[in-house]
Amino acid sequence: MSVNARVAILMGSKSDLTAMAEAARVLERFDVPYALEVTSAHRSPERTLEIVRRSEQAGVQVFIVGAGMAAHLAGVVAAHTTKPVLGVPMDGKLMGGLDALLSTVQMPRGVPVATLALGRSGACNAALLALEILALGDERLAGRLVQEKRAMAEEVERPAEAARRELGELLEG
Amino acid sequence: MSVNARVAILMGSKSDLTAMAEAARVLERFDVPYALEVTSAHRSPERTLEIVRRSEQAGVQVFIVGAGMAAHLAGVVAAHTTKPVLGVPMDGKLMGGLDALLSTVQMPRGVPVATLALGRSGACNAALLALEILALGDERLAGRLVQEKRAMAEEVERPAEAARRELGELLEG
Amino acid sequence: MSVNARVAILMGSKSDLTAMAEAARVLERFDVPYALEVTSAHRSPERTLEIVRRSEQAGVQVFIVGAGMAAHLAGVVAAHTTKPVLGVPMDGKLMGGLDALLSTVQMPRGVPVATLALGRSGACNAALLALEILALGDERLAGRLVQEKRAMAEEVERPAEAARRELGELLEG
Amino acid sequence: MSVNARVAILMGSKSDLTAMAEAARVLERFDVPYALEVTSAHRSPERTLEIVRRSEQAGVQVFIVGAGMAAHLAGVVAAHTTKPVLGVPMDGKLMGGLDALLSTVQMPRGVPVATLALGRSGACNAALLALEILALGDERLAGRLVQEKRAMAEEVERPAEAARRELGELLEG
Amino acid sequence: MSVNARVAILMGSKSDLTAMAEAARVLERFDVPYALEVTSAHRSPERTLEIVRRSEQAGVQVFIVGAGMAAHLAGVVAAHTTKPVLGVPMDGKLMGGLDALLSTVQMPRGVPVATLALGRSGACNAALLALEILALGDERLAGRLVQEKRAMAEEVERPAEAARRELGELLEG
Amino acid sequence: MSVNARVAILMGSKSDLTAMAEAARVLERFDVPYALEVTSAHRSPERTLEIVRRSEQAGVQVFIVGAGMAAHLAGVVAAHTTKPVLGVPMDGKLMGGLDALLSTVQMPRGVPVATLALGRSGACNAALLALEILALGDERLAGRLVQEKRAMAEEVERPAEAARRELGELLEG
Amino acid sequence: MSVNARVAILMGSKSDLTAMAEAARVLERFDVPYALEVTSAHRSPERTLEIVRRSEQAGVQVFIVGAGMAAHLAGVVAAHTTKPVLGVPMDGKLMGGLDALLSTVQMPRGVPVATLALGRSGACNAALLALEILALGDERLAGRLVQEKRAMAEEVERPAEAARRELGELLEG
Amino acid sequence: MSVNARVAILMGSKSDLTAMAEAARVLERFDVPYALEVTSAHRSPERTLEIVRRSEQAGVQVFIVGAGMAAHLAGVVAAHTTKPVLGVPMDGKLMGGLDALLSTVQMPRGVPVATLALGRSGACNAALLALEILALGDERLAGRLVQEKRAMAEEVERPAEAARRELGELLEG
Repeated sequence: MSVNARVAILMGSKSDLTAMAEAARVLERFDVPYALEVTSAHRSPERTLEIVRRSEQAGVQVFIVGAGMAAHLAGVVAAHTTKPVLGVPMDGKLMGGLDALLSTVQMPRGVPVATLALGRSGACNAALLALEILALGDERLAGRLVQEKRAMAEEVERPAEAARRELGELLEG
Repeated sequence: MSVNARVAILMGSKSDLTAMAEAARVLERFDVPYALEVTSAHRSPERTLEIVRRSEQAGVQVFIVGAGMAAHLAGVVAAHTTKPVLGVPMDGKLMGGLDALLSTVQMPRGVPVATLALGRSGACNAALLALEILALGDERLAGRLVQEKRAMAEEVERPAEAARRELGELLEG
Repeated sequence: MSVNARVAILMGSKSDLTAMAEAARVLERFDVPYALEVTSAHRSPERTLEIVRRSEQAGVQVFIVGAGMAAHLAGVVAAHTTKPVLGVPMDGKLMGGLDALLSTVQMPRGVPVATLALGRSGACNAALLALEILALGDERLAGRLVQEKRAMAEEVERPAEAARRELGELLEG
Repeated sequence: MSVNARVAILMGSKSDLTAMAEAARVLERFDVPYALEVTSAHRSPERTLEIVRRSEQAGVQVFIVGAGMAAHLAGVVAAHTTKPVLGVPMDGKLMGGLDALLSTVQMPRGVPVATLALGRSGACNAALLALEILALGDERLAGRLVQEKRAMAEEVERPAEAARRELGELLEG
Repeated sequence: MSVNARVAILMGSKSDLTAMAEAARVLERFDVPYALEVTSAHRSPERTLEIVRRSEQAGVQVFIVGAGMAAHLAGVVAAHTTKPVLGVPMDGKLMGGLDALLSTVQMPRGVPVATLALGRSGACNAALLALEILALGDERLAGRLVQEKRAMAEEVERPAEAARRELGELLEG
Repeated sequence: MSVNARVAILMGSKSDLTAMAEAARVLERFDVPYALEVTSAHRSPERTLEIVRRSEQAGVQVFIVGAGMAAHLAGVVAAHTTKPVLGVPMDGKLMGGLDALLSTVQMPRGVPVATLALGRSGACNAALLALEILALGDERLAGRLVQEKRAMAEEVERPAEAARRELGELLEG
Repeated sequence: MSVNARVAILMGSKSDLTAMAEAARVLERFDVPYALEVTSAHRSPERTLEIVRRSEQAGVQVFIVGAGMAAHLAGVVAAHTTKPVLGVPMDGKLMGGLDALLSTVQMPRGVPVATLALGRSGACNAALLALEILALGDERLAGRLVQEKRAMAEEVERPAEAARRELGELLEG
Repeated sequence: MSVNARVAILMGSKSDLTAMAEAARVLERFDVPYALEVTSAHRSPERTLEIVRRSEQAGVQVFIVGAGMAAHLAGVVAAHTTKPVLGVPMDGKLMGGLDALLSTVQMPRGVPVATLALGRSGACNAALLALEILALGDERLAGRLVQEKRAMAEEVERPAEAARRELGELLEG
């Protein structure tokens, strides 16, 4: 982790870490400094507000926020900043996480939260979206994202071959 | 409406008034003073906080909060008070209001929101629940609630007769 | 457990105990006497009615009721008392507990059930809500709730540090 | 309507009459005497219990029960009788009536409610199911049901011709 | 199992046996002879039709039908008989069994299927409902059902005591 | 309509005609002869079976089947033919047609139903899919489908211009 | 509308215009040039690809994409660009738009779509989110957004007064 | 696997192989040559397009496409071909796979995807549907499908006997 964070990763509970670590991993791979905080929309509202303010002053440009159940944290952050807020709903027991998804995405006019998929995939994509946003003002980053996209496309060919081999085994076995 | 409000009715948008007026109607019938505010968890977070603080100082004992979509208002109120907070999800387009219901009821440990049914029925019941809570310290109110319950049971007999008459017409017509 | 119960915890089946014990734990921590009963809205309706009546006579002020599936127990209790009834839907197989949630929360006008989140979180919050209600007439309890809220806010800082440490390990490992 | 009712049609609110009249219509067509009552599981629990007892003493063999939202009425009736109870969930705003459907069908072991489709179709089918049940001890009724089934099959041919004519118009127009 | 079956238990797949055995267990306890068949609405439609016809000729009075996914078996049976058909949806992966529940319960006018809860609870209740239906013409059975209901109510008291003991252990441990 | 039908359009109720007429319209445009029938999986099972058999003998290659609620008709047709069966769930009140969708698509192994979107869009696409299937053995039809696809792509440009004009008016007005 | 578009608003069908015009309205208010296109992920895939490429070359920084049903358009755009893609699901019949919401938000790793609320609210918020993103490199815009947020908070006070007046009328009338 | 593939099985991720192998197994049993590819609608859109074109040129007649979450792959394939495209949604965490089901089935007019059940059952049925389609121009295959259907019906009798034996053990044990 690093100091001059350009991205702040917030999560509502330490149990969200396994999913949200995906976001940190992506940011580290792209050498984008970030900060990590656990704070709660409901249990520590003042602390949440303070983290948002401190983050903005420290130069944070994008907030990535993970939360589950009645996932209000992203909305509360969005209420206090005009920086982009990216919400990652945590998957849970009730309908597999539909509560967190709807609580994150169905924001009223005026206070947008950019919502990503549930859980680990969403956390990974939140980091990529943050990179896309930062890349608008950072050509080197923009270049790396284009490379990444190409690499990703090429990487799909390998599982295809592996899948054909594995299918052979599945059908024989 | 009246001054020494014992109940505060908050709503996230003026469009929630039709439903939330049911709560006001019940409180008026029981002569319990209340205050009415429109405030938003996201668009006016400071104002919301201020209303909660001012309400508490003015002697409000119970908060009734209506909100739709990613209905965070009840949760935000609950984050800032230790008075009982009763949440009324507004019915909407997405699955008939399931977004508001889940955003209101699925609160994390430590910050309870007492959730009622969607829309007008919920608003009416929120007021009754507020009365039940106030009645624990107010014998006269407790007595009136017992009477009300009895009256309600008796009132069910009348629609039964009306229904039988109407059925006759329906089957002939 | 104790005699002069101010809160009655009812559950529809002994299998609900693991979740509902969370409510008991909170009440014990705040030294609020409570009673515990297993009774069924459907299998033992007379017994349920008797428990409600006996509880009221013994001075119970708040009912906390847990039930799963077509969770009618909270509604049946609410039908027979004018004390506040707090419902805790049990999580289950069908859509993660949506059946119990809707059966508990969608009460018709006139008979409110204050519904909390599904399962253990809901049971914990039901107890806190009961404390908030009792605290309206008990200043010492009110004081302890304010303290609890503050402590809860402070406790969120510790997981933040732990999460940062753990993230380091996750990203290296 | 008639006296020596063999079927009791109960509904939770007079607003359920339009749907539940379908059940009455079917019973009238088959000359099966029935009684109609409006009563509420929650607002008039004693009255409900009394209606169940009185119905049983008067010789009612089957209960048809319609209710909406947290539809407990069928379950409460089933709790107090060992006669077959047929539940008709009313369609509503929340997901088109899913609340009433789940509250009616997801009964715990020991207290069955035979649940039919939502609204008018369900009410019609509840009456047919009641007839099927009564027909087990009534050969004339059994015979009429077999005839009805045959007539129903034949009636499907007519709409086929009408549909073909109408399609012609639709495609030209 | 026995010959002069009064109830036929059908299931769409052998994998439904664990759930449907609950129905058999109840019928055995009440000494009601039944038959058990595995047949499929889709894979063996002729066989299904034949089983329905043969069952009726052999004196079967009630059909209990379990099926999962697009659970059509109960509806197909109901299409070919005027005896009561009780449907038990199997719980599954998609929304915990909502597919089977809706496919069983949402029958069109004219062809009722009495739907019970998902899985084992539903299978148990289907058998009880079958007994309630048969008891209309069998006083001894009717008497046993009344006894059973009473016993069930008394049995709820024991888990209450056990729950209180267990809670003590849970809170200490 | 025409005689040597290569496609049979079946629907469970005449009320499905408005939606299913979309399928007829597409087939007429491509000059593919079809037959139209109203029949019910439940109310006229023998007639349904007969229609399937007669259709096959008359040379029908593809079945398009529309049905609502517990939509079994497509499944029943699929049970009796090895020709491709395309299912169109009708939209309805319960969750907007989720009952019909799940009843159509969640078929068990061995009896496929190719399910299209709900309502009119699904009916239109069912016809197109039928054309794609027939085109595998009909080069002229294959050619027309390729043309159609191209035309469709070009047609999208016109609404773009119209939308821009209309937006201007919307923003001024 | 204007030439040097910094934002491209795409929609899958002209019928999405009423909702998507909200996005245009917001961008106009902030004097941010944008382009508007109707294109389809499925009916005109080449055209879609071309629009994305042309937009990027013309300097578009953010894509706002509205689509309904199996809403793939935002995902297809995201597959071909590394600029931020903001998705607005259109509300529809199936569960109020749940199909479009899930099709937009549940993107796999590597291809993020920032999803907003359903329909008009979502379109409005997508434009605000685009402004927040552009404001990271545009101080004047950043300043205006902060002002807007303040104005929005102040504007909430007016409906509060109006609501109180209107409530008075409602309760009297 | 084999060269002159008449069916192409595509999947969005190698993790879909376990389910999609069911389709391969069925095609092998019927000696229908097929090709298997892993490609992504979003991560490798060009590659996907190329596979579709190459497959068509090589004589592929039917596409079977499996994908999860916002399952766009089948729709993207359908956008680029006029051959029948059969979609198999993968089951997942959110409501058991409802996201993939809706993203696959709710295609707009003009671009049909024939959707099968979730997961393994759907993959098996997709292969059977492909066989039904190919059989329209291949009498030997048509004959084998009729045989298969008959065999399937007969096979249902065996589990019936096994189930009866197993029930005996279950009830004794």
